[in-house]
Amino acid sequence: MWEETWIVKYRPKTMTHEMDEDLTLLFKPSVVAVVGASADPRKIGHIALKNLLSGDFSVHPVNPREHEILGRKCYGSLNDIPDGVDVAVIVLPAKSSIDVVRDAAQSGVRFVVVTSSGFSERGESGEGLQDALMAAVDGTCTRVLGPNTMGLMVPSSHLDTFFISKERSSRPGRGSIAVVSQSGAVAVSFLEKAEAAGIGVSACVCLGNKADIDEVDLLRHFADDAETQCIAMYLESFSNGRLFLEVARDVALSKPVVLLKAGRTRAGSAAARSHTGAIASASDAVVDGALRQAGVVRVYDEEELVDVSRAVSVIGHVENDRICVVASAGGFGVIASDFVESSDNGMGLRMAELSEITVSELRKAVPEFAAPRNPVDLTAEVTDAMYDQVLGILKADPGVDAIMMSLELQPPNVTDGLIEVASRRFSEGAPPIVMSAFAKDQSSVMRDMASRGLVVYPTIRRSMRAIAALAERGGYLRRRR
Amino acid sequence: MWEETWIVKYRPKTMTHEMDEDLTLLFKPSVVAVVGASADPRKIGHIALKNLLSGDFSVHPVNPREHEILGRKCYGSLNDIPDGVDVAVIVLPAKSSIDVVRDAAQSGVRFVVVTSSGFSERGESGEGLQDALMAAVDGTCTRVLGPNTMGLMVPSSHLDTFFISKERSSRPGRGSIAVVSQSGAVAVSFLEKAEAAGIGVSACVCLGNKADIDEVDLLRHFADDAETQCIAMYLESFSNGRLFLEVARDVALSKPVVLLKAGRTRAGSAAARSHTGAIASASDAVVDGALRQAGVVRVYDEEELVDVSRAVSVIGHVENDRICVVASAGGFGVIASDFVESSDNGMGLRMAELSEITVSELRKAVPEFAAPRNPVDLTAEVTDAMYDQVLGILKADPGVDAIMMSLELQPPNVTDGLIEVASRRFSEGAPPIVMSAFAKDQSSVMRDMASRGLVVYPTIRRSMRAIAALAERGGYLRRRR
Repeated sequence: MWEETWIVKYRPKTMTHEMDEDLTLLFKPSVVAVVGASADPRKIGHIALKNLLSGDFSVHPVNPREHEILGRKCYGSLNDIPDGVDVAVIVLPAKSSIDVVRDAAQSGVRFVVVTSSGFSERGESGEGLQDALMAAVDGTCTRVLGPNTMGLMVPSSHLDTFFISKERSSRPGRGSIAVVSQSGAVAVSFLEKAEAAGIGVSACVCLGNKADIDEVDLLRHFADDAETQCIAMYLESFSNGRLFLEVARDVALSKPVVLLKAGRTRAGSAAARSHTGAIASASDAVVDGALRQAGVVRVYDEEELVDVSRAVSVIGHVENDRICVVASAGGFGVIASDFVESSDNGMGLRMAELSEITVSELRKAVPEFAAPRNPVDLTAEVTDAMYDQVLGILKADPGVDAIMMSLELQPPNVTDGLIEVASRRFSEGAPPIVMSAFAKDQSSVMRDMASRGLVVYPTIRRSMRAIAALAERGGYLRRRR
Repeated sequence: MWEETWIVKYRPKTMTHEMDEDLTLLFKPSVVAVVGASADPRKIGHIALKNLLSGDFSVHPVNPREHEILGRKCYGSLNDIPDGVDVAVIVLPAKSSIDVVRDAAQSGVRFVVVTSSGFSERGESGEGLQDALMAAVDGTCTRVLGPNTMGLMVPSSHLDTFFISKERSSRPGRGSIAVVSQSGAVAVSFLEKAEAAGIGVSACVCLGNKADIDEVDLLRHFADDAETQCIAMYLESFSNGRLFLEVARDVALSKPVVLLKAGRTRAGSAAARSHTGAIASASDAVVDGALRQAGVVRVYDEEELVDVSRAVSVIGHVENDRICVVASAGGFGVIASDFVESSDNGMGLRMAELSEITVSELRKAVPEFAAPRNPVDLTAEVTDAMYDQVLGILKADPGVDAIMMSLELQPPNVTDGLIEVASRRFSEGAPPIVMSAFAKDQSSVMRDMASRGLVVYPTIRRSMRAIAALAERGGYLRRRR
């Protein structure tokens, strides 16, 4: 039933693009043009150009009223550029954009990024313009990203069409998470949070109104992208819900897909409609069930999107849901154990039952008064070596599917060497270790740990949420095998 | 029924303390002694002494083997100190502590802080020691904090018995949140998170095994403490559940009580037993209902404890649950609206219906294409002045109980002046504004905003959670009136 109600694309594509389904050149172009480039540093046509100048490609500003901007020769129109343009970023008002897109299509530009708003997100008045925009590329091989989009950011090629200066908003380095977002702000927030946490991305694409290129195209693209280990999406609508599920179901077998689907309530979907022209889909419960069946991991806020994507991009999945918690801070062990077991305010997982061998080994490793049970409480007498030994014992227990390690740097006999210990034990492989870290210099400790490839969070709940996502992935893969 | 099962004190108090129910001297002593003070900088007897030296009171180290430590004359025993000691911090092994506590009680020391572990949290072997400890103060006016505790930290008097150096763990400044914790690590994490966010505390007390001073004593104390606007608690057990509820019900009428009750699952409560000797109480659903009736706001992790306490300590409550969301980032408006309405993955609140006047005023204030509805989407064309005007319009609408303001500093025409705007509108009073902030320099922006007294979070979910807690408080106060 949902198939009928859940095809919610703003409007069906009016042309076929079989000729150019490959989006590779959009991410790794040789020649980029900025139409509407400006000499005025306050204008977005300037910021976009400036951000692009550090890219691994040639950049041509287009503006009939200028000879040169930021040291680059300025062209009067796209047609005047001698090179074949792979990507044209159009920073013009809606109506002018349409003419430029027509030019671009006729001169064989492969991709146009249409940044301006004023299209379908403005209701009826804008729908006509969006129709005209798509008519301008009809029958050509030109594909459109947007309109109403900030475009894309690709660390490997330094492609960056975002019209926010790097002084205003930081960009992360290379990594393995591909971000696909129907909201520019959510994309920016992902990038800032990732950068702050020392996490990289393979690319970040803002979909805007999805007149042409949509989440399904990008799902397919990133499925084949060697650099991408996880596809993180923020969507307010599905262009074609049925197709999305079909494709996601395939992709999810090899790569985790994490989705923040907003507009899930009456108020949220009304807001989404005026934001990106997204039209409300089937009931959220129906959507939820369908996503689950397709193996899509669902999240609910912008931080959880980063957190879960990080975990699945690095660890992939955990085989089952038997969790062992280890902490030197007894309180954190208790809180974490509550999160493991509770379904109401927790993750609905299971506490691993430690084997007799594990218990007897633990008894020798931990202080005499510490309990050799799950959660393992190392007490304030913890040392780096004790933590190392305990991790080794737990990793050898076949009844443990994942370890939640609470790493506290405050106890007197712990040193920064504990991070080395965590790092080494983490790199030994399954069962994986997800960490929470508590330290005075929280953010620099987190960045240091992330740079070593560790999966670490600053709270118990967030690390438990990451483990739950890994277990959900594991369950899905088990069912599909 | 739960009254019978929920009296879970480790053991009933064996003495009466009517004489000295006033804890004021514990927080503002004139004379403090450190028994077990050490000259070795690695020892906790050294760290505790060092931390105390910056306090507004005299400090006397006690150690029969030293003449002077850190420039202070060292005494052979508590009895040798000429001044009357208000607080004796005992940093000795369990067995030695008991003799010292007996000395302290006999020489009229008002409060002893017994830091050592090895008491009831170790099961049967420790229970005898804990009995002996309490027998040592029987019939005297000496009260015991602990054992198995880090003691307390009071910014106003610079009392700090925590045996973690300030280099290892930061302490926040003065503020209006009193922290009461059955776990030292959770207390430390609260202090570090608060300090990092620019939030102060009025005091932080670690309860340890609660042989004498317990959460009810502290609830009563902080209820009368003028500096305290909110009591934030981490508990693994209730000394006397029935009494706690009675007292909390009174206190909650004037001051919010926020509680992280851990050990709420089978695994969690087993872990709590070996951590602080806490014995499992009635089923968590029963506890939950009883807490709700007593007006206690319940939270589930260490970050939520800080977040919710901050909101209620500053704003108190909101009258009702009609929320207006305003953002310049459309995506955040959508996510926030979903959180308002959803009960499953949200707060179960209501979106405010804006009045006709509000809608027509908004139509003039926001960009032509922006929707004058709730959530209010200011779009990327937002300016400081536009945000100011819109907040003014929304605050004048009697149908709005609280405003969730998503403050984004990335749009091109926004300046740092937007923080001034937010600050001024916030200080105008009801309806209150709870903020989320998104900026490149996230943590410094957050600290700046907190120092202006604003209630601000770095994610949508966390700000919505704070609003839900304020609405829960409002609902409780309405029912009680």
